[in-house]
Amino acid sequence: MNLVASKQIESFLIEDIGTGDLSTELIFNNESESRGYFMAKDDGVIAGLAVPDQVYQLLNHKVSFRPFYKDGDFVKAGDIIGEATGPIHALLTGERVILNLMQRMSGIATQTSEAIKLLDDPLIRICDTRKTAPGLRFFDKLAVRIGGGYNHRMGLYDGVMLKDNHIAFAGGIEAAVAQARNKLGHTIKVEVEVETKAQLIEALKAEVDIIMFDNRSPEEVKLWVKQVPSSIITEVSGGITLEHLERYRHTGVDYISIGALTHSVKAFDISFNSKE
Amino acid sequence: MNLVASKQIESFLIEDIGTGDLSTELIFNNESESRGYFMAKDDGVIAGLAVPDQVYQLLNHKVSFRPFYKDGDFVKAGDIIGEATGPIHALLTGERVILNLMQRMSGIATQTSEAIKLLDDPLIRICDTRKTAPGLRFFDKLAVRIGGGYNHRMGLYDGVMLKDNHIAFAGGIEAAVAQARNKLGHTIKVEVEVETKAQLIEALKAEVDIIMFDNRSPEEVKLWVKQVPSSIITEVSGGITLEHLERYRHTGVDYISIGALTHSVKAFDISFNSKE
Amino acid sequence: MNLVASKQIESFLIEDIGTGDLSTELIFNNESESRGYFMAKDDGVIAGLAVPDQVYQLLNHKVSFRPFYKDGDFVKAGDIIGEATGPIHALLTGERVILNLMQRMSGIATQTSEAIKLLDDPLIRICDTRKTAPGLRFFDKLAVRIGGGYNHRMGLYDGVMLKDNHIAFAGGIEAAVAQARNKLGHTIKVEVEVETKAQLIEALKAEVDIIMFDNRSPEEVKLWVKQVPSSIITEVSGGITLEHLERYRHTGVDYISIGALTHSVKAFDISFNSKE
Amino acid sequence: MNLVASKQIESFLIEDIGTGDLSTELIFNNESESRGYFMAKDDGVIAGLAVPDQVYQLLNHKVSFRPFYKDGDFVKAGDIIGEATGPIHALLTGERVILNLMQRMSGIATQTSEAIKLLDDPLIRICDTRKTAPGLRFFDKLAVRIGGGYNHRMGLYDGVMLKDNHIAFAGGIEAAVAQARNKLGHTIKVEVEVETKAQLIEALKAEVDIIMFDNRSPEEVKLWVKQVPSSIITEVSGGITLEHLERYRHTGVDYISIGALTHSVKAFDISFNSKE
Amino acid sequence: MNLVASKQIESFLIEDIGTGDLSTELIFNNESESRGYFMAKDDGVIAGLAVPDQVYQLLNHKVSFRPFYKDGDFVKAGDIIGEATGPIHALLTGERVILNLMQRMSGIATQTSEAIKLLDDPLIRICDTRKTAPGLRFFDKLAVRIGGGYNHRMGLYDGVMLKDNHIAFAGGIEAAVAQARNKLGHTIKVEVEVETKAQLIEALKAEVDIIMFDNRSPEEVKLWVKQVPSSIITEVSGGITLEHLERYRHTGVDYISIGALTHSVKAFDISFNSKE
Amino acid sequence: MNLVASKQIESFLIEDIGTGDLSTELIFNNESESRGYFMAKDDGVIAGLAVPDQVYQLLNHKVSFRPFYKDGDFVKAGDIIGEATGPIHALLTGERVILNLMQRMSGIATQTSEAIKLLDDPLIRICDTRKTAPGLRFFDKLAVRIGGGYNHRMGLYDGVMLKDNHIAFAGGIEAAVAQARNKLGHTIKVEVEVETKAQLIEALKAEVDIIMFDNRSPEEVKLWVKQVPSSIITEVSGGITLEHLERYRHTGVDYISIGALTHSVKAFDISFNSKE
Repeated sequence: MNLVASKQIESFLIEDIGTGDLSTELIFNNESESRGYFMAKDDGVIAGLAVPDQVYQLLNHKVSFRPFYKDGDFVKAGDIIGEATGPIHALLTGERVILNLMQRMSGIATQTSEAIKLLDDPLIRICDTRKTAPGLRFFDKLAVRIGGGYNHRMGLYDGVMLKDNHIAFAGGIEAAVAQARNKLGHTIKVEVEVETKAQLIEALKAEVDIIMFDNRSPEEVKLWVKQVPSSIITEVSGGITLEHLERYRHTGVDYISIGALTHSVKAFDISFNSKE
Repeated sequence: MNLVASKQIESFLIEDIGTGDLSTELIFNNESESRGYFMAKDDGVIAGLAVPDQVYQLLNHKVSFRPFYKDGDFVKAGDIIGEATGPIHALLTGERVILNLMQRMSGIATQTSEAIKLLDDPLIRICDTRKTAPGLRFFDKLAVRIGGGYNHRMGLYDGVMLKDNHIAFAGGIEAAVAQARNKLGHTIKVEVEVETKAQLIEALKAEVDIIMFDNRSPEEVKLWVKQVPSSIITEVSGGITLEHLERYRHTGVDYISIGALTHSVKAFDISFNSKE
Repeated sequence: MNLVASKQIESFLIEDIGTGDLSTELIFNNESESRGYFMAKDDGVIAGLAVPDQVYQLLNHKVSFRPFYKDGDFVKAGDIIGEATGPIHALLTGERVILNLMQRMSGIATQTSEAIKLLDDPLIRICDTRKTAPGLRFFDKLAVRIGGGYNHRMGLYDGVMLKDNHIAFAGGIEAAVAQARNKLGHTIKVEVEVETKAQLIEALKAEVDIIMFDNRSPEEVKLWVKQVPSSIITEVSGGITLEHLERYRHTGVDYISIGALTHSVKAFDISFNSKE
Repeated sequence: MNLVASKQIESFLIEDIGTGDLSTELIFNNESESRGYFMAKDDGVIAGLAVPDQVYQLLNHKVSFRPFYKDGDFVKAGDIIGEATGPIHALLTGERVILNLMQRMSGIATQTSEAIKLLDDPLIRICDTRKTAPGLRFFDKLAVRIGGGYNHRMGLYDGVMLKDNHIAFAGGIEAAVAQARNKLGHTIKVEVEVETKAQLIEALKAEVDIIMFDNRSPEEVKLWVKQVPSSIITEVSGGITLEHLERYRHTGVDYISIGALTHSVKAFDISFNSKE
Repeated sequence: MNLVASKQIESFLIEDIGTGDLSTELIFNNESESRGYFMAKDDGVIAGLAVPDQVYQLLNHKVSFRPFYKDGDFVKAGDIIGEATGPIHALLTGERVILNLMQRMSGIATQTSEAIKLLDDPLIRICDTRKTAPGLRFFDKLAVRIGGGYNHRMGLYDGVMLKDNHIAFAGGIEAAVAQARNKLGHTIKVEVEVETKAQLIEALKAEVDIIMFDNRSPEEVKLWVKQVPSSIITEVSGGITLEHLERYRHTGVDYISIGALTHSVKAFDISFNSKE
Repeated sequence: MNLVASKQIESFLIEDIGTGDLSTELIFNNESESRGYFMAKDDGVIAGLAVPDQVYQLLNHKVSFRPFYKDGDFVKAGDIIGEATGPIHALLTGERVILNLMQRMSGIATQTSEAIKLLDDPLIRICDTRKTAPGLRFFDKLAVRIGGGYNHRMGLYDGVMLKDNHIAFAGGIEAAVAQARNKLGHTIKVEVEVETKAQLIEALKAEVDIIMFDNRSPEEVKLWVKQVPSSIITEVSGGITLEHLERYRHTGVDYISIGALTHSVKAFDISFNSKE
């Protein structure tokens, strides 16, 4: 895992353990070893199988974790996902942080995978947004990829995206894009959000790299996409939930970005038990 | 806000901004000022109104934020929650982090408030668990309190809780509690999770401070609670969702702890716009 | 050792080493190895035997440390406590930080153990306070436990304690406790400090978990303790030094908390030498 | 105060406050303001008067602190040292960290000042060692200066000091000094510890900057000092306690370094109260 | 300035000040104020005028800095760039860090500006590389922009760039690009380095966004550029120094990236003096 | 390597890698291993051979690095400096940070070595200044030593140096030195910068440890050095570049400090390739 990610996992452990895991330290001595099993309690896409190893390396090198699946696999309730062997201390102390992170990641991967199935259009890709849990963007976006989705930009630093507020404050798309292009290097793309036909025409004139149709109906999307040359990527966004995803099937758009993939996550239930 | 929390908010900003907010820096100069409005797009309990101020203080002291509600207030879709005035730069750069955090906190507060209404029993308190998003425990638990709920322990360090795995590894409740009590100071409570009648009796003998009935039906809870003297606090937990909360009404238990309050959060939609 | 503690030990090393241990780096090459001995120069309770290992792991994995005692053992001046073998570089560079920390911890453990002996009452437990050296609370409190004492709360976050200033600012015990209880979860205890008989009665009415008699004579303690039902824990505190500890023998109080255990520490002398 | 020191004070606050000061947050709202007084409970030299301001700036800018003395002043039990005015929240939350740090610093300053009086020789300077509490070197050494003492090197990085172990491992003073000098810049001094007359002669030949007589009697010191040319500074060290300091009066040595100044500190008692 | 950048400036100050600026603290009291002037000692483009303010805010809020130029202005030896007024302490303590950073940034801006003049082709943009001083990428790349250049990607995270080693290890351009495209979102561009005509053809087939001609002569560049459709951006790189930049004039390439802009920097001399 | 230095190397990697090395992660799986060679592309003194190991330990323990030279060796363009074997992932991800740091360090070592050759006077030592790249002082100064030079003080904390501004603000050398000496411990040296004969005489009276002739011609230096007793070290500084270094040959001064050694560095070219 990434250096930044492993430092974050350390901070998650510190958040939970603080000055000590009282329950474990008071009862178990340092030597006794045992075994524990991670079991799926839901059906879905498992994600985050690198997490237990990272946690145990920080707590106690003597724990070994053996995964029985790999990230992206579909598992069913009752399946044993992996097995950890080593000092009871570390098994108990690391349990909650591992589960909290894997459950969130698997929840995101599962929801992403469902979105792809509901859309059922191999020509349209599902992608995420910056609407991730604060501090968890790396993990949330990794989980989207594991679920079969694609990542939109990681932050404000790796893409220019002119949204409604930028355009409102700047006073129009063309001026804003021209000004950005004038100082921007060649490795960064420029995306613009459009809400009206007039804005779409402005965006086309401005020769942006990506045009995002904000809060548009499937019918509008179908019509607007036809106006956009193939060299420009199209994207739909704005309150699209899994319920009405299928309405966007065969609209011809390239990407559908869905904030709910990461801002409204149902944890995928996983248990950790001393018995298989 | 707490020192730790404000350092975390800084890290959330760094996660999003990284080496710079390209879109904003390329288009707006440092001087131009404007105004923006935070508007509720859902009905529910608003939480996190201290967040905008913390963010703007880190980005630019010249921004002032005026809230129109206070944490815990019920707002309706369309209500203006607050207004920010100052340099456009900071308004745009801070938008996403503020929204991501407030939307999560308001989602948690709203769900907590709903749980209390669904349960509809003033003698039972709803509380949270340690199943929070990694790195967000302070904010998740604050949101539960804002929604009218109560906090269970913050981490492994501020309470002893012997769960199924502890008991299994240790070989029984009584021995485990005795060993813990022997080294534990007087300011920390001891809680034990019980799954069977036999374990309940063991826990009562062990004179723990809190007994938690794990995955028990409302009927069992009603019967078991009667066995517990009033000096011991009772708690129910284990996969209790909002759907069947009302079945626990009038069971006589003191606390119901619900992991879903924080592990499966539906973001409460809030927008930020240059127009009211 | 705890994750937080090992990060702190790293910062202690950085404090001492900074941009480099000039004396060692200029004279010794990286390869030469040798052996050194930690020897007690006082009689007392040794504490902190996990420290050398933590330090050497950070400086050089090739050093191995073998302790000849375990934390809490009584040693006499001249006893060899442990032996370190490996690169001279690391032996010399780590010496001072190891000694500074072990000497403080052993000093605290020894003083705690003496307090227990002086009090000579198996029904009263000696405990610490928050009067620890800033940044060293984990180590100071661990040393108290090693010496046979008990820990009071770790910080402001894991227990409610209403002291003289809280009560003075809030205008009375009952109101303050009621307000606290109203928002407080069930895992946290409430302690109140009382200085007068009237306050004791108020505290009893308020049904707090722990009552602390502040600056009371042994005679008062004896009388007051009798007023307190067994379900409430009693504690004495306030300027109690080892000299007059025995006066509190058989007062019937549950805990005596002593700030001096950690705020006024006499280092337990330990040397590190290349010769046994 | 130094940038490093103010970051450390922040970490001391975080250590104590953690996820929140429960007692204060549950009882007091954010607005109520009041006043508190810091009062000396011992006679001695006060040190650390910059601490309250640093703490309050981190907790709440609205608190103002007015000192009635300055660092290094002699105060008597009962003297009001300073007054803090502002939100009750911050007054209560910051109390313990301020007191813990000021009590330690004032204890060190007082002990240093006593050492100077006991020695009663204006030609000999009292200085400290690296035997400080881990993480507190800046504050411990500042307190020594406030008490009228001098600082020995701050760490392993700002001075070469060849101690018994270096010499033993290296096989002699001359070789070690020559090797150090060969690579060392001109801004760093070289000090050598000597235990025998033969070593003294070796050190003189090696033309070191400072010679430290380790564990030598006052008589030996007197004789040995005479052998050392005035261009070389002399220092005595090794288990010198305040009790027998006066025996080193008029020995002609330049510096006496005393580990106990910082490794065995008796806190100087200070209280914080809402009433003057 | 960026949040990350201001945290870095703080770390630069800590690197220089450590446990204290001895020279200043021993001589000046905290109150005395004065004035100092930053003067150019070379001719060139000034950069980093936001640095003094950041430094003084961290050291002492009472210092005010007034710049007489703005970033990107051309100044001549002898020009007063700005004036700082406030406590002597902070003026002296901050001097070196301010100068070190501004001298480097101005050196980079000046060299970039010279490169643009030497090339003298408004259709070709000069850009930087990732060959920046470790830890200084933000500042180095900001200085390039101030000098009139453009930024290539900031790091490994905001652009895909397949270089010689990637292609060698992967076994060819087409396979590598296809694999990358398959998992990559739409906001990131793909750049490929080509060294031969065969590789150029492969890259064109792979439909990359940017083609970089590695170590090619001006003649080759002219020929190769003609093969590339206008929808693909072209770049030249590889050991191009200012000396032979003009040979690339009118080659038709879009960007020339020059590592030397940031890896071989001649400091632009600036002095700080108490007299104008 | 030093603890501080290895934490810095980690931060350099995080600066470059951020949320992930897209190019590498998208194309290579975690298992494939290979080999790469570091080759000198210039003639000069190699420095920083400990860097690759540090980087690979942080990225992937499975990479092993074998150096073919040692720090300070003279290498020629085409020489293979070392070989790294292990997972392709880590070889590619670590490449740029390793090269950026080694190229800078080798550039500094080479320039230092050239300065020594140009000066060609075994009685005068070349040393550095505090004019290092912000955040890189440890590495810059280590490279100077590797090149055969000596280190001046590391920061403001390990030496007193009264420069023109100190003297101007303080109103004269004697008063300033006296005040410093009065509070300064015996392990720190005092250096003074002199620009005039009158100042030289003042400095001699003040009995400083080091006198630095600022911006003086070789002729002046020769004359002034004769006035200084051998117990005081002499140093020349101020805009001395390699071009006119030889003019200072046989001036009798002890040290020449050269800011350009570290503020104006030409990177020493090194490549990393999959083929030898």
